[in-house]
Amino acid sequence: MEIKEWGEDKWVHYLKEQFPSKTPTVGIGDDCAVIPDHPNKAWLVTTDALVEGVHFLKEQIPALDLGYKTIAVNVSDIAAMGGLPQYAFLTIALPKNVECQWACHVLQGMKMACQEWDIQLLGGDTVGSKRDLFLNLTLIGSADLHHIKYRHDAKPTDIICVTGYLGNAGAGLQALQDHIATTTNVQDLIQAHFHPYPHLQQGVWLASKSGVHAMMDISDGLDCDLKRLIKSSCCGAVIEASKLPFSKALVETSLDHQWDPLKFALTGGEDYCLLVTVSQESFPAIQSSFQEKFGSPLYAIGKMTDQIGQLDYHENGVLIQLNYTNFDHFQ
Amino acid sequence: MEIKEWGEDKWVHYLKEQFPSKTPTVGIGDDCAVIPDHPNKAWLVTTDALVEGVHFLKEQIPALDLGYKTIAVNVSDIAAMGGLPQYAFLTIALPKNVECQWACHVLQGMKMACQEWDIQLLGGDTVGSKRDLFLNLTLIGSADLHHIKYRHDAKPTDIICVTGYLGNAGAGLQALQDHIATTTNVQDLIQAHFHPYPHLQQGVWLASKSGVHAMMDISDGLDCDLKRLIKSSCCGAVIEASKLPFSKALVETSLDHQWDPLKFALTGGEDYCLLVTVSQESFPAIQSSFQEKFGSPLYAIGKMTDQIGQLDYHENGVLIQLNYTNFDHFQ
Repeated sequence: MEIKEWGEDKWVHYLKEQFPSKTPTVGIGDDCAVIPDHPNKAWLVTTDALVEGVHFLKEQIPALDLGYKTIAVNVSDIAAMGGLPQYAFLTIALPKNVECQWACHVLQGMKMACQEWDIQLLGGDTVGSKRDLFLNLTLIGSADLHHIKYRHDAKPTDIICVTGYLGNAGAGLQALQDHIATTTNVQDLIQAHFHPYPHLQQGVWLASKSGVHAMMDISDGLDCDLKRLIKSSCCGAVIEASKLPFSKALVETSLDHQWDPLKFALTGGEDYCLLVTVSQESFPAIQSSFQEKFGSPLYAIGKMTDQIGQLDYHENGVLIQLNYTNFDHFQ
Repeated sequence: MEIKEWGEDKWVHYLKEQFPSKTPTVGIGDDCAVIPDHPNKAWLVTTDALVEGVHFLKEQIPALDLGYKTIAVNVSDIAAMGGLPQYAFLTIALPKNVECQWACHVLQGMKMACQEWDIQLLGGDTVGSKRDLFLNLTLIGSADLHHIKYRHDAKPTDIICVTGYLGNAGAGLQALQDHIATTTNVQDLIQAHFHPYPHLQQGVWLASKSGVHAMMDISDGLDCDLKRLIKSSCCGAVIEASKLPFSKALVETSLDHQWDPLKFALTGGEDYCLLVTVSQESFPAIQSSFQEKFGSPLYAIGKMTDQIGQLDYHENGVLIQLNYTNFDHFQ
């Protein structure tokens, strides 16, 4: 049997079974592994790869953006647990005909990102590759041990929130694939795909609130990631589709091209904003402080339920059926 | 200009320039990065990739060995600094047509290695790949901060030693490439290539000795790695070729096939034994305790000199000229 018949989830399930975590560390399944160190401090470790032909097309993405994105997607994982990044380790597998200038621009993009988030790149491995270019970053951060948020702490009746627009990056990728004319709106969407901006300060702030129960970042699309969260928390969820935050660029471009913005929001992926659940009692105060502190809304998009494993979508309170397919690396 | 015209060393030099280390961490250039944590303790972090078609041929290496080797080569980097491994993070990029059973055997091999060295695999990233299979492991270990050995502390007149045979793995790869008949000797050589055994306990023990000045592992071949050590230490070195330790399997197979065992010892790579420099005064005591503790010799193969950057080979005390080419990932 080939791995595409298993799919990504079955493979990861097998992997988790083979390597069960032992306390006090928390392992495979959250955005980062947690290694408690001092009484009040833990190390957070995450690793993410970008593979040519799967995550990016070398002819399409500017080299500076590719470097920046390699760091940014990992920073987002640290943000998702409420930590701050510190040390990075880069593996780069380069085919021998890669242009030096292009490869140097990739490093320049990484350097920009490292300077932005005060990260030290401390090492890695440079190897050749027969055909495809491969980038892997391991990022180590740290967090207050008692503030770290996980996927498994959501409770039924929690308000489900996101910290930013959904679907922009997915629509940006579609725009590139369809070669559509680059209006300002389309440029914004493509920029969201090329140059994601992790919600690091928002993550640290949300993690410090006891009313925030569960947190993760949205990297594979709301539908896929929320399913992971409800599974970890042994809950269900209802999302009110009309409350999903769409950018003006996404709404207008979708109208122009008869796109369904909901599809990008749920399955597009690479939003790199945060998905959080907040207790009902704490929600009003947290929402208004968030708005005040960050100048942008904490969007309430639904509620956790006690229907274990069930994720429903409503349109103005009425159940709707959606038939989107989530991305699977092996399909 | 293409990256193959730069070569690996120029690329790594550029990378180091872009990301200079800040104290108290030690970064790019040693086998591991060192992150001091407690007054007497430091974290060691290393990352190593194995790329299909470059580091292994999927049809050739047994999946169990590939998994084991992915862990072992990283354990060797921790050994090279005098630490013990603790936590591993795996990135695996799988083409969709990979056989599930094969992929599961790779994980089984990793599990064997993790159990052998008491390593917890805590996380990683599983992604698809268009064509080639990539494995990347980041390994975190820890060490007594005051015992850590670096490449830059060798002194002129130090005795240069290795902890095991040289050239077996390189000859094993040659045997596979030439499809030569698999005698017991040839099997031993192929086994050295498929299933390296890092000198972890030797590393911890040697690191605890103040008479041991510099230490690293031999992954790219003695010639290439010793050049790195003398460059870091601003010294030179003379190697006495007749003192290089060759296994019976290498000597006999070389005779059978008119191979030059010296070529494998100097440029074959993947030996994963340790290269150490020991002060002249401490050498006799360290060599005899090593033999007693590990039941195998600490082989003295040459001396450090004050001829900065110069690596000479002698045969019975007389300078010899060698024209081997070292492996370069981009050539």
